[in-house]
Amino acid sequence: MTETLFTVGVIGAGRIGQIHINNLKQRPDIRLKTIARNSVEGKEEWFASTGAEVLTDDYRDIIEDKEIDTVFICSPTEQHPEMIVAAARAGKNIFCEKPISQSDEETMKAYQAVKEADVPFMTAFNRRFDRNFRKVQQKIKNGEIGKIHQLKITSRDPEPPAMEFIHTSGGMFFDMSIHDFDMARFLTDSYVTEVYAKGGALISPELEGIDIDTAIVVLTFENGTMGVIDNSRKAVYGYDQRLEVFGEKGAIKVGNETETQVVTANESGIHGEKPLHFFLERYEEAFCQEVNEFIDALKKGNTPPVGFEDAIHAQRVAAAAEKSLHIGKPVKVDNEW
Amino acid sequence: MTETLFTVGVIGAGRIGQIHINNLKQRPDIRLKTIARNSVEGKEEWFASTGAEVLTDDYRDIIEDKEIDTVFICSPTEQHPEMIVAAARAGKNIFCEKPISQSDEETMKAYQAVKEADVPFMTAFNRRFDRNFRKVQQKIKNGEIGKIHQLKITSRDPEPPAMEFIHTSGGMFFDMSIHDFDMARFLTDSYVTEVYAKGGALISPELEGIDIDTAIVVLTFENGTMGVIDNSRKAVYGYDQRLEVFGEKGAIKVGNETETQVVTANESGIHGEKPLHFFLERYEEAFCQEVNEFIDALKKGNTPPVGFEDAIHAQRVAAAAEKSLHIGKPVKVDNEW
Amino acid sequence: MTETLFTVGVIGAGRIGQIHINNLKQRPDIRLKTIARNSVEGKEEWFASTGAEVLTDDYRDIIEDKEIDTVFICSPTEQHPEMIVAAARAGKNIFCEKPISQSDEETMKAYQAVKEADVPFMTAFNRRFDRNFRKVQQKIKNGEIGKIHQLKITSRDPEPPAMEFIHTSGGMFFDMSIHDFDMARFLTDSYVTEVYAKGGALISPELEGIDIDTAIVVLTFENGTMGVIDNSRKAVYGYDQRLEVFGEKGAIKVGNETETQVVTANESGIHGEKPLHFFLERYEEAFCQEVNEFIDALKKGNTPPVGFEDAIHAQRVAAAAEKSLHIGKPVKVDNEW
Amino acid sequence: MTETLFTVGVIGAGRIGQIHINNLKQRPDIRLKTIARNSVEGKEEWFASTGAEVLTDDYRDIIEDKEIDTVFICSPTEQHPEMIVAAARAGKNIFCEKPISQSDEETMKAYQAVKEADVPFMTAFNRRFDRNFRKVQQKIKNGEIGKIHQLKITSRDPEPPAMEFIHTSGGMFFDMSIHDFDMARFLTDSYVTEVYAKGGALISPELEGIDIDTAIVVLTFENGTMGVIDNSRKAVYGYDQRLEVFGEKGAIKVGNETETQVVTANESGIHGEKPLHFFLERYEEAFCQEVNEFIDALKKGNTPPVGFEDAIHAQRVAAAAEKSLHIGKPVKVDNEW
Repeated sequence: MTETLFTVGVIGAGRIGQIHINNLKQRPDIRLKTIARNSVEGKEEWFASTGAEVLTDDYRDIIEDKEIDTVFICSPTEQHPEMIVAAARAGKNIFCEKPISQSDEETMKAYQAVKEADVPFMTAFNRRFDRNFRKVQQKIKNGEIGKIHQLKITSRDPEPPAMEFIHTSGGMFFDMSIHDFDMARFLTDSYVTEVYAKGGALISPELEGIDIDTAIVVLTFENGTMGVIDNSRKAVYGYDQRLEVFGEKGAIKVGNETETQVVTANESGIHGEKPLHFFLERYEEAFCQEVNEFIDALKKGNTPPVGFEDAIHAQRVAAAAEKSLHIGKPVKVDNEW
Repeated sequence: MTETLFTVGVIGAGRIGQIHINNLKQRPDIRLKTIARNSVEGKEEWFASTGAEVLTDDYRDIIEDKEIDTVFICSPTEQHPEMIVAAARAGKNIFCEKPISQSDEETMKAYQAVKEADVPFMTAFNRRFDRNFRKVQQKIKNGEIGKIHQLKITSRDPEPPAMEFIHTSGGMFFDMSIHDFDMARFLTDSYVTEVYAKGGALISPELEGIDIDTAIVVLTFENGTMGVIDNSRKAVYGYDQRLEVFGEKGAIKVGNETETQVVTANESGIHGEKPLHFFLERYEEAFCQEVNEFIDALKKGNTPPVGFEDAIHAQRVAAAAEKSLHIGKPVKVDNEW
Repeated sequence: MTETLFTVGVIGAGRIGQIHINNLKQRPDIRLKTIARNSVEGKEEWFASTGAEVLTDDYRDIIEDKEIDTVFICSPTEQHPEMIVAAARAGKNIFCEKPISQSDEETMKAYQAVKEADVPFMTAFNRRFDRNFRKVQQKIKNGEIGKIHQLKITSRDPEPPAMEFIHTSGGMFFDMSIHDFDMARFLTDSYVTEVYAKGGALISPELEGIDIDTAIVVLTFENGTMGVIDNSRKAVYGYDQRLEVFGEKGAIKVGNETETQVVTANESGIHGEKPLHFFLERYEEAFCQEVNEFIDALKKGNTPPVGFEDAIHAQRVAAAAEKSLHIGKPVKVDNEW
Repeated sequence: MTETLFTVGVIGAGRIGQIHINNLKQRPDIRLKTIARNSVEGKEEWFASTGAEVLTDDYRDIIEDKEIDTVFICSPTEQHPEMIVAAARAGKNIFCEKPISQSDEETMKAYQAVKEADVPFMTAFNRRFDRNFRKVQQKIKNGEIGKIHQLKITSRDPEPPAMEFIHTSGGMFFDMSIHDFDMARFLTDSYVTEVYAKGGALISPELEGIDIDTAIVVLTFENGTMGVIDNSRKAVYGYDQRLEVFGEKGAIKVGNETETQVVTANESGIHGEKPLHFFLERYEEAFCQEVNEFIDALKKGNTPPVGFEDAIHAQRVAAAAEKSLHIGKPVKVDNEW
């Protein structure tokens, strides 16, 4: 039988926490010991289904547990920095959901703690583990299209989040576009040096002054590549996740994934399926792969595949986009830390 | 100014005759002298638009005109053999619509007359001049997929012909599938040796006993290739003209042509256009190319690109399919003439 | 914790047996007790990984074990009938790989035993559980394309099986095309009444007289639909699994699945991926779904989704195709049992 | 016979002038009287092929010819304003190639002359006459995707122009992107109010300081739509002309046109054709349609389909893009004239 190699505690059991719990359960080398969540009352049945041993509403029960060597932080964003610092000081391996925080200062404090403790840390940019985007990245690395001139990312959600979420989300750039900022970095293997953002509340005019729901963001990279991202909170035809990289020797494109390859022809035309509905469907495999690669890196003593620096960079791009949106001009990105 | 090289007479001015007239008008080296059609009364305005000089209801006015060196035969099928014989004996260059006739005997008589007169002759299998199919043929010839194992042709009309046409058409195999039989020969560069046909009146049950409207025909070629054609008189989504050639080194496919590349995504799916409506739209360019290549061959003294033998072969395949349908067994094709 | 509902024995641990073992392991309601395989020596490590409790080289250890209520028969085809009879008499739930046997007589004996014992039985036609084909079937059932006129299945393997396998496989129709025959029945919901088959050893001429590797099979269905299947043992571009259903109101097509949606454009053209390599990749999910639906049917006391009759029918179509190939004429299919 | 309705003079017989000459020749209602070109020596044979009557190297021969009622201005851009003014004062119908000029002042002088003379005037934005884009525009107008939120245009040439052309072209925005600026206006039916441009000489570093060859331009429209254009002077896979309009009820996309629908599958993948090579191929039909609609508008006394104002607007957007590129900030567009 496979030996247990890591004992895990998961903090937060919202939508994303539960995905990680399910994926952790598949691994015979993982002992899922403790789950910490805000409210534990009435959660007995759910808890039984997780296969974990301890349910608590205090995340410190995980931090202080000497048996637990690995912590998954899936709590609300504003709690991340404190938890990272605590987990780092306790010498745990850390897997943390994105973004680290909405404040560069808080993020840098957590970063310092991780550096000082010298613990393995991974930021959960799940899209890097998608088969499609990974293949694009490999092709770029292999030089198939030569030097990259342009990068274009289309990223549209099928429906806007609830209003209450928007108030705590840090805004569309921090919550949604941040994935695209990281994808841009992943594919170009270069830092963004300047950002120009245009945005508006075109879908939900009542958002005006609170957040935007539609944006176009132009990125300038250190290596000379130009990038552009278009975002929307509501594409009625489903989750639209496409990208295109254009270089001196050609272009690489990724279209959407559909549930099936079925096409129907009738009097009104030729009809195909909408893209997979949303991130849970589209990135189901990527979420699983992400956890597996984190654990496998720990196993081999390798650095986890997405570093803290990647999180810092994506957040600074988001902050620059936010600022650009407000001042109406391009904004430089600080890449020193 | 370009010199007139050929003086043409066109017999028949139905749908297909008019296409050829229009295409002949584009060529500065052609003098379109005479048009013969059944009824000439009330056709003055139309005739003026053709740019021709003489309108007659007697095709012999064309045959006997010494100035006319080239005849286009676009009359109803049953008149073809007589006209071919007359034109051949008068030493004209002949362009004749398919099929030559529905009777092998009549066809062979016309063939003999053409051989004896040794005049250039072309059968109007327009699809051979389609850019798509021609490219497939070139790729096969270039050996891109090696030896061919299977050939598949889908050929579906958007709507059945009028009942009165069906009575004189010679049946679906002679009228419609004959194009596919010729395409099969064009692409494989081999003769069909055996035919098995399955068919029925699935669209219009009232056709039962008169004709079929749906068929699957299996072809065996001299070179070992196996072929299959599926035909329907009514595809509600439009004219369906696809084919696929499968060989030891790969496969070549041709999809349908659409009017535009526009695709619409909405709540109900991803929607593309139907294929171009019917043969006038789908083969518009091929009809033009067909006439041009005929004239160009005459100009250079070359054999026209589709020979009388191709017509004979396609008709014999059609006759074999007809017979197979009735006896319920495969039927051999006689390729001696 | 989930209660164990079924105790399973698996007979045969070749490629397909191992797939089922892996899928059974995912279910918390299954106790995988015993695996029977021909040779058990040196298999300790592998056996440990299966999570089963008993390893034997005698399948009767499974039949005679009162604790085991459910048997998966994944042994070589010629052993199926005997094992089915034994399992049926022992009152087990039976899941059996296709084909039941290559002999109608043997198959019918097994069928009788199953009927007499009145035990749940499922034939493992995995493709019925593919998302794509299932969606096509639902659309047909919903009447989206009306009455079906034509059904076309393309089914090509990426590479021929080993010569030794061919000698015991019962021939291409029994081993490979049988999936297509069942798919045809699944989609049309009608029995095949007549078969015409054309085939040859075009890929491996050394097969001549032993088996074929290329075929075109025409099917006539009870409900009037016409079908055609094209098979090849070797498509260099990968596992080609497409189908198209054409009806009075339109057509439904399924293309191949690819690993990713990545497309590369360069000086030589626009390049997409080959289809998923072979059945293990293409039907990975379907194999899993197949086992789940069998177990779920047992749980609810429902008839398993693919019956013994479906196996009998597909085999009779294969036998008719085999006969047609040899006599060169269409052959009727007997649908009485 | 059709009566001649308009007598035309064409100024300039470069690539684009010759296209218009050819298309004018197809119309029976046009008398192509005079062609003016810089150098007329040795052009006899070419001139004979045009069917025109007079060849001159002085464009005033056209302006002063009372028989000529319609002038096509296809000369180098810097000569446009003077010729427009002369033609307008002479009361001619004017068809003028884009851009009008590279100077807003010159353009406005020509505009005043046209307004004062009150002559029909059309700017030759050929892409508006492309079947694909026109269909998109109709669908938008029909409300198929509701209010437009985002417009994305990809426009890449297959190869950069000659260095000598670049020196007189007015820069990429004036020469190439101007088509995209007009397309943006055509599709949104709204004026651009602000432009942000990012560009560089990524393909030909020797262009640095002279022109750019790669750009991303963000447009803000009066109606709230956000637009983005990506341009490149060199896509090795051919002329890339795609666009996408995204709105509250869905999205409309146009892909590239290819010469055929042929797809080849082999061991290395699935291969399609590159887009049609360049504008002569891609917009062949649009060039023809453009001239036809201009003449037809004259015939019916209608305003030609693309007005002088459209040219002014596109040029001002180009000028704003140019300025934005240099100052590194968004620039407002003046839409008063």
